[in-house]
Amino acid sequence: MGLVYLDNNATTRTDVAVIEAMLPYFREVFGNPSSTHALGADVGGAVRQARRQVQALLGAAHDHEVVFTSGGTESDNAALLSALETQAGRDEIVTTTVEHPAILQCVEHLQQSRGIRVHRIGVDAGGRLDMGAFRAALGPRTAVASAMWANNETGTIFPVEELAALAHAAGALFHTDAVQAAGRLPMALKGTEIDMLSLSGHKLHGPKGIGALYVRKGVPFRPLLRGGRQERGRRGGTENVPAIIGLGKAAELAAQHLPAERTRVAALRDRLEQGILRLGGSRVNGDTARRLPNTSNLAFDHIDSEALLLRLGRAGIAASSGAACASGSTEPSHVLRAMDLPEVALHGALRLSLSRETTPEDIDRTLAAMAEILPTLRAQALQALAG
Amino acid sequence: MGLVYLDNNATTRTDVAVIEAMLPYFREVFGNPSSTHALGADVGGAVRQARRQVQALLGAAHDHEVVFTSGGTESDNAALLSALETQAGRDEIVTTTVEHPAILQCVEHLQQSRGIRVHRIGVDAGGRLDMGAFRAALGPRTAVASAMWANNETGTIFPVEELAALAHAAGALFHTDAVQAAGRLPMALKGTEIDMLSLSGHKLHGPKGIGALYVRKGVPFRPLLRGGRQERGRRGGTENVPAIIGLGKAAELAAQHLPAERTRVAALRDRLEQGILRLGGSRVNGDTARRLPNTSNLAFDHIDSEALLLRLGRAGIAASSGAACASGSTEPSHVLRAMDLPEVALHGALRLSLSRETTPEDIDRTLAAMAEILPTLRAQALQALAG
Repeated sequence: MGLVYLDNNATTRTDVAVIEAMLPYFREVFGNPSSTHALGADVGGAVRQARRQVQALLGAAHDHEVVFTSGGTESDNAALLSALETQAGRDEIVTTTVEHPAILQCVEHLQQSRGIRVHRIGVDAGGRLDMGAFRAALGPRTAVASAMWANNETGTIFPVEELAALAHAAGALFHTDAVQAAGRLPMALKGTEIDMLSLSGHKLHGPKGIGALYVRKGVPFRPLLRGGRQERGRRGGTENVPAIIGLGKAAELAAQHLPAERTRVAALRDRLEQGILRLGGSRVNGDTARRLPNTSNLAFDHIDSEALLLRLGRAGIAASSGAACASGSTEPSHVLRAMDLPEVALHGALRLSLSRETTPEDIDRTLAAMAEILPTLRAQALQALAG
Repeated sequence: MGLVYLDNNATTRTDVAVIEAMLPYFREVFGNPSSTHALGADVGGAVRQARRQVQALLGAAHDHEVVFTSGGTESDNAALLSALETQAGRDEIVTTTVEHPAILQCVEHLQQSRGIRVHRIGVDAGGRLDMGAFRAALGPRTAVASAMWANNETGTIFPVEELAALAHAAGALFHTDAVQAAGRLPMALKGTEIDMLSLSGHKLHGPKGIGALYVRKGVPFRPLLRGGRQERGRRGGTENVPAIIGLGKAAELAAQHLPAERTRVAALRDRLEQGILRLGGSRVNGDTARRLPNTSNLAFDHIDSEALLLRLGRAGIAASSGAACASGSTEPSHVLRAMDLPEVALHGALRLSLSRETTPEDIDRTLAAMAEILPTLRAQALQALAG
């Protein structure tokens, strides 16, 4: 029996077609695209095609609005730093309490090292952003507002188009970390006011170590990595050609699959979630009305996440208690804590994240395992309390 | 007839064994190493092995001195920025005029944006560093001195161990960009005073998009990319697992091949160089006494590099006039310009860079092509001068 992989918000399996697309670029067409000989030129054409594939996934107006980076973290860091460097007289950042560490650690550092003022806007118990506070925090000193498109732990979707318009009304730039949303939600950036957007290859069945930063045409930009004139001077370093080709293919596949998969995966997720809720003693974390189709975050009474994950693991089911980036830590997730949930819910959270590779059999197996594990763990916990 | 690839300082062909080592990590062992489930744990062990392989290539004392990055440019940028952030009261950088743009563009930006004082030490006509000027530039305000181990255009080797000792005598850190030297020259960092060292996977038959920054144990370090706690908190972002495995394998292979290949490649390079010199009207750029075994940089009288490269390309030979990162530009290389060569030499430079894949037949074919091309181009040039 194979592994049931329900940790797709941590990373996804690379699509076979992506690997096949990449392979020739390791040994046959392996040139440096900046080289002037034929081997370099061949590579340049392939990189252009990949850029157009990412453009298409995002619904961007121009292919040169796509800057290839080493991943979501680099894209997020680059967006914030560029905004500060290009918005003269503006030294404040507005963001949210539930962002990925690639935003939160970056703003923390900017605050400590450069005295940047950071407004961290909170969420309610459903993970919904406090829109009034967001609006109130924006002002003439705001360089950039950054809010994720969809949360990595709960899947809750922020109204990024509305947030972008609010940021613009204050004369600030707007960036969104769309690492979890890209390929899972339809996007048409062309018609929005979003200035910058981060995405990551390995969250959409592409390779690790590659991502993109969308920078709208006309938005001023300063590179984070300084070196050669690659990416129109916006990102130094030899282009990671195989991974760029892989990301392009992954973007193409994601765009193709999105309309059908969005419905299919949501149906599987809902069946899984409903089945678990019927077992009793659990509730959904996050905004079920506006949520990624693939994500379910559940809080269990009297159950410790780590014990639950261990049992699931023995049953061949991979899931997580929160973000992979925070793993190893025994602290409850900063996302759930920001939602001000009861303490008992914080320690009993389970994140199940599906993908287009998830099958109905995976859901059946997970439900069967949960039906067996939950009563056992709960009995143990109650015994411990009584004892 | 296959391509004769003599542009290995721009990028190298990925070794078949490297690709084979990487492949399982795309689909079978594809977990996020930060995940707690079994799939994540399996990956963690493989990453540790890769770190030890890089440690062995560098002759470093501890595997945790190796921080994986997205490549040479990120490593270089991270080293300089970290040094500035950790050396309180020190706001000067000493570097050289012939560094890679990943250093020169970075210090240029630091100078302009933060008022950092930068001392750029020059070289003589042979590309040798002005040691007196280097020593004189170091002082109580120097945060870091950064000098490349070997030059990417001429192959000239700097005495980095001596430079590191000089930097330490002034209380400064020492960093070296060893992107061209790693895998081509033996290294035993353990016994040196080098604090930080950059290397890149794709220059040693590993994948693109991966590199490492060596940070000696005890040297204070602040991350450039801020996010998750990966790489012991020294580099945020999901680990690029397949590429890390590939870099590990590439390092292992480079270490194995180095002793024999160093001699074999140097002999091929010398035969190629001597053969071309015998055709007349050319001279070697750089320090032939202390040079990478694989690199030859030649200056031709009355010949334009671009015309020469075009003809070589038609004969199936890939070479370059200088660094790939500066390609597309019609300006002579900053390295050759820094060497204060006569103007005619600047426009007629050819860089031939070999690798362990270079065969005696490649050298024969190149020599035959040069014997045919050079007189034709020279006759054309003299005709134009006369006409």
